[in-house]
Amino acid sequence: MKIGLDVLGGDYAPESNIKGAIEAQKLLDESQRIVLFGDEHATRKAIEAAGSDPSKFDYVHAPENISMHEHPTKAITQKPNSSIAKGFELLKSAEIDSFSSAGNTGAMLVGAMFSVKTIPGVLRPAIATNVPKLKEGFGILLDVGANADCKPEMLNQFALLGSLYAEHVYGIPTPKVGLLNIGEEEEKGNNLTVATYPLLKANNKINFIGNAEGRDLFSDHADVIVCDGYTGNVALKLAESFYVVTLKKGFKDPFFDRFNYERYGGSPILGVNAPVIIGHGISTPEAIKNMVLLSRDMIASQFIEKIRSAFN
Amino acid sequence: MKIGLDVLGGDYAPESNIKGAIEAQKLLDESQRIVLFGDEHATRKAIEAAGSDPSKFDYVHAPENISMHEHPTKAITQKPNSSIAKGFELLKSAEIDSFSSAGNTGAMLVGAMFSVKTIPGVLRPAIATNVPKLKEGFGILLDVGANADCKPEMLNQFALLGSLYAEHVYGIPTPKVGLLNIGEEEEKGNNLTVATYPLLKANNKINFIGNAEGRDLFSDHADVIVCDGYTGNVALKLAESFYVVTLKKGFKDPFFDRFNYERYGGSPILGVNAPVIIGHGISTPEAIKNMVLLSRDMIASQFIEKIRSAFN
Repeated sequence: MKIGLDVLGGDYAPESNIKGAIEAQKLLDESQRIVLFGDEHATRKAIEAAGSDPSKFDYVHAPENISMHEHPTKAITQKPNSSIAKGFELLKSAEIDSFSSAGNTGAMLVGAMFSVKTIPGVLRPAIATNVPKLKEGFGILLDVGANADCKPEMLNQFALLGSLYAEHVYGIPTPKVGLLNIGEEEEKGNNLTVATYPLLKANNKINFIGNAEGRDLFSDHADVIVCDGYTGNVALKLAESFYVVTLKKGFKDPFFDRFNYERYGGSPILGVNAPVIIGHGISTPEAIKNMVLLSRDMIASQFIEKIRSAFN
Repeated sequence: MKIGLDVLGGDYAPESNIKGAIEAQKLLDESQRIVLFGDEHATRKAIEAAGSDPSKFDYVHAPENISMHEHPTKAITQKPNSSIAKGFELLKSAEIDSFSSAGNTGAMLVGAMFSVKTIPGVLRPAIATNVPKLKEGFGILLDVGANADCKPEMLNQFALLGSLYAEHVYGIPTPKVGLLNIGEEEEKGNNLTVATYPLLKANNKINFIGNAEGRDLFSDHADVIVCDGYTGNVALKLAESFYVVTLKKGFKDPFFDRFNYERYGGSPILGVNAPVIIGHGISTPEAIKNMVLLSRDMIASQFIEKIRSAFN
């Protein structure tokens, strides 16, 4: 198993990424190798300086970086030696089994779609994020930004993608799927959700439990909540800001702790032909470590195969 | 000044509404009268039982109630003696200057649009809610549910409605108006926000400061945040649920205290020809009291006149 990791992406790169890789490596077995994309020489030196052994890792020399504010499509094509472009090049040729980066989200999305491509039958990939649940554990919210405008058929597919992710990667049996909406009743909503409801209701590959409201995000009402990428992104950033407030105010609580993005490592792009994970821009070593472990879990669970057969 | 109040609407009605009316009345001057819509006899008795003087109030006998789950349009037409139907009847004939209720939101919206009607030039009224700001005070978010689907022109009008409300009722000079979006740059967003941005930019009646993200809801980035009613409703309920969590966990903080809906009384319907306020379903006496005071402030500030001339 080859777990590709971008050393250059993220606000705290490369230090944070290298530290995270070192920590993650300790938890992997011998068959699981982390492949580091960045300046090989500098990366090896940094690993050595951190007291670890560079031979525990594989390397792909990709010294260029795509910054946070570059145009995704332009950057990917104009910087073939960037860590993200190289990562997707090797993911496409199956020299690595997954690729993750805390770098430019748009470049990650474009890279994934142009290299490994969308799984046949999937209309559009979606970015999923996990949402802490009040009682315990996590739920899934998607799409949180890949598709600002959605059609009902897309939301119906996101429901299946999210359900499979919750089941196979998070280990939630028969995940409850809810449609993010503004009322409990079937007829409530905007044009999109009103048209989506009957599709979800008729979808026998998911356990649809009806509408979920904004207040249900953290409750046990649903394990997977489906919405368009505009609404999901607004909801995600709103929830994050609330978490930041509790941090600033010094409120400690296991529920708020679960908001910590460091714990889950990143947001997967669901619906492409390989595990691809986007890390938070401010990824710490802990976040990077967990992104590597999530990559491993996605590979080990043969999640991509599960999606392929579900959409077959 | 005649401030119309529904005695029957809300989960804790009529007790809570009557107690709230009694408390509010103590803060009004002699020219300001609360007009109570409900069962007149029962209301008078309840006021007396609470140790207050029934002659301090005016009454309109409207013994029927529209429950939370009734179909708004049907209920309004089939229950002419309901407190909400009577309230709008008298609001239309200008026998009262405002009407507020913690009852059926849909009936309040339908009642307002069918009786006092939309202000000429306003495409669609919007429901505004206030949002606590981290530093101090409140901002405005609209629409939070009147219009699940919106056109760019509607959002452009909501911006002006919200701006006038923030200025004249909340006393915020030149309110900063933001567009709820999923990125800082002008070209970011869904079809609706991308098309709305240039309209807001060209609108010289507002102080447009660009996009606001989910994380900006509680910051000082914008005083007024504009979005479609679906997204606003999701964001509002999400924020409310977070506040409920802090309450349950026993976290005390002035910022979280400002989330308490009791403090601001209710959400106005902006864009109709009279002050109309929808209270929270679980309105306590404190919430009802503040709803009456907000009604008074909307009347006293001649807010409706300000909107009329702005849309003229």
